[in-house]
Amino acid sequence: MSQAATDYRPMWEALGLDLPGHDALLSAIPLMYQDAHLSQANRPEGMAYFDFVMSEIHGLRIKELVDHKAAGGTVIGTFCLYVPEEIIRALGGQCVGLCAGAEWAYGEVERILPKNTCALIKSFMGFKLGKVCPYAEACDLIVGETTCDGKKKAYELFTDLAPLHVMELPQMKRPEDRVLWRAEIERLTAKLEEISGRNLTAEALAAAVKEVNDKRRALQRLNAARRASPVPISGKDALLAVQVAFYDDVPRFTSMVNKIADELEARVAAGEGAMPKGAPRILVTGTPMAIPNWKMHDVIEKLGAVVVMEELCTGSRYYSQLVDETPTDIPGMIDVITDKYLDINCACFTPNQGRIDDVIRLAQDYKVDGIIQYDLQFCTPYQIEATAVDRAAKAAGIPVLRIDTDYSSGDMGQLSTRVEAFLEMIE
Amino acid sequence: MSQAATDYRPMWEALGLDLPGHDALLSAIPLMYQDAHLSQANRPEGMAYFDFVMSEIHGLRIKELVDHKAAGGTVIGTFCLYVPEEIIRALGGQCVGLCAGAEWAYGEVERILPKNTCALIKSFMGFKLGKVCPYAEACDLIVGETTCDGKKKAYELFTDLAPLHVMELPQMKRPEDRVLWRAEIERLTAKLEEISGRNLTAEALAAAVKEVNDKRRALQRLNAARRASPVPISGKDALLAVQVAFYDDVPRFTSMVNKIADELEARVAAGEGAMPKGAPRILVTGTPMAIPNWKMHDVIEKLGAVVVMEELCTGSRYYSQLVDETPTDIPGMIDVITDKYLDINCACFTPNQGRIDDVIRLAQDYKVDGIIQYDLQFCTPYQIEATAVDRAAKAAGIPVLRIDTDYSSGDMGQLSTRVEAFLEMIE
Repeated sequence: MSQAATDYRPMWEALGLDLPGHDALLSAIPLMYQDAHLSQANRPEGMAYFDFVMSEIHGLRIKELVDHKAAGGTVIGTFCLYVPEEIIRALGGQCVGLCAGAEWAYGEVERILPKNTCALIKSFMGFKLGKVCPYAEACDLIVGETTCDGKKKAYELFTDLAPLHVMELPQMKRPEDRVLWRAEIERLTAKLEEISGRNLTAEALAAAVKEVNDKRRALQRLNAARRASPVPISGKDALLAVQVAFYDDVPRFTSMVNKIADELEARVAAGEGAMPKGAPRILVTGTPMAIPNWKMHDVIEKLGAVVVMEELCTGSRYYSQLVDETPTDIPGMIDVITDKYLDINCACFTPNQGRIDDVIRLAQDYKVDGIIQYDLQFCTPYQIEATAVDRAAKAAGIPVLRIDTDYSSGDMGQLSTRVEAFLEMIE
Repeated sequence: MSQAATDYRPMWEALGLDLPGHDALLSAIPLMYQDAHLSQANRPEGMAYFDFVMSEIHGLRIKELVDHKAAGGTVIGTFCLYVPEEIIRALGGQCVGLCAGAEWAYGEVERILPKNTCALIKSFMGFKLGKVCPYAEACDLIVGETTCDGKKKAYELFTDLAPLHVMELPQMKRPEDRVLWRAEIERLTAKLEEISGRNLTAEALAAAVKEVNDKRRALQRLNAARRASPVPISGKDALLAVQVAFYDDVPRFTSMVNKIADELEARVAAGEGAMPKGAPRILVTGTPMAIPNWKMHDVIEKLGAVVVMEELCTGSRYYSQLVDETPTDIPGMIDVITDKYLDINCACFTPNQGRIDDVIRLAQDYKVDGIIQYDLQFCTPYQIEATAVDRAAKAAGIPVLRIDTDYSSGDMGQLSTRVEAFLEMIE
């Protein structure tokens, strides 16, 4: 975000960004980051790495991607956990999440999408129409999926804007669905082979499986430390780690997260917390939060509570399952990759009891005082599934609050009041 | 609806209906029917049959279903075109559409579903929670499907309320999807065999294929007559025929629709119309309209225009494709049933160019002056696909109007004003 050290404008211009719009965006994010993250007390020292990453998220990281392409690699954009990063990396690709965490160009978006579309979808469409996401502009291919009606149908309009490949995610998890999903992973592999001009090798795939598992293991360590009381890292900082995991260089990210995990484990041993010991412990579950969407965590933590776990795509769903490293041949590895990704519990599946069970298990495991269901308005799968989560939480005796919101700041006061009342109730 | 001839209250009570609520519902529908249908001039005489059906829709028809069950048959409820009626009938079942065309028990519904759920889903849930749909209460099984996020997730809550079987409809139409869909049809067959205590025979299936095709052929004849100018039947009456097709006894319905088709063909030959020759001709496309949802057609036709075609699930999508009658063995028949149903162009598919092509082809074939896109608010698949329909209509030089609405009467004035302005523009 900072333009202090290097002038990235020629690079942004070459990528086709709308420079005045991009300038406006880049002037807003540091203020949000300052307010949400840098203003926190007792942060782990290791978070300095993330502060640096955030300061260079449209700068140095984009330059790395551009250099990677110049060296013959590809950049592949995704909006969803279900796109297997292992395959992308094994074929010389860098996998990047695309910008979708803020309101942008909604006027233009609402000319082609209904107003009652969720903020995430409007946002990704707005960043593309407004040409302010350097990740999207650097992509050789964007990989979509059929997780929800909104994305599935919005991708049809996105086809006009960027090279796109859509994976069909099944809606159940039975053997026939696994067959379909495995075929989709093979179809993606063929597409990536075509784009990269490479062939998938067992050696490269095994290395990529290990590398991406290492990233997940590092995040598992970081998040395991959050079981402690006092909690050694704020929810906002832990959320940021997963958000950055979608963008950052994998081995570097893994190494930095492991360093933070070392620090957190030392903090836990010393009884040091990022927040006071008595702070109410909250689990947040629901729809994903892309950078710079820190709204829910910010409201909760500014009221003195702490988020100790996220059952989110930008949370436990991202890192909790590993790909089995046993198989060594390509079909065997594709098998276990198929299984790992199909095992994620998105609300797009029916039924989706696995997610309900995860929420309750995590809530108990992390000894939370309450669950906050954070759902984007018009996100039908999560909004309807919230009823089942509510019922399960009540049956388990865990207080639960439902928040339906968007990316605007217009309801911050109201959210704050509702969360405050909830915290008073559970304390 | 009329309680004149027979007292159906003991039957309704035995079905578990909420009698006071049901009374209130039954007192409202005849007024709506009078205002929308009976008030029309120049109706085909054959519509007297539908007037009778409507007057007995919760009475005689329910009694027939109850008698059918008493004689060892089953009643299977559906909310969607994709559930193959042929299989249901071949196993001794009567297939019925379920009530979903009016606001009912929304207060109760909105305790478990988000307010921003489409009217059709809120309605089916409300009729069930309020216990005012005798079709739903008479069902041995309700067959749902994964067509959209809203239905897919609402069925999870519906499981607590009624015996339910959910079919997974794929989201694309490639060979792998056909494999999945064929397996789903076999899974449904097994479920229906279990419930009915019968085994599927080739003879019964061939008879059912013929019978349901005959119903579709009769509707094709009726709707073919609408190409004429002046048009021999109003859009409201033609819509009603398809709406009733979901509920009525199949051979009787077929015979009555063929009689109306005879009458319409004679009218066309004589140059007689239900509406004046110069009335603007409208194609309506979008989301399905369940009884008593006649709102859009009513607004259009009361302004002096006429709907000459519906590209709707309660329109051409229902009757335009037949099941191939060539195969004689069960696997061969299941194959062609798989193909026929997968060939329906619902907006739940991606891409769905077939539907866009259908809309333009029908608009040209029926020489329409304009297209009205009727979509329920919060029906994401159709609302987003409306952008592609808009673009195709404009490219074909056909004026197009988009209407997003619900089941309330609150926006009737506004709709009327917008449609009136559209009609003035195209005249």
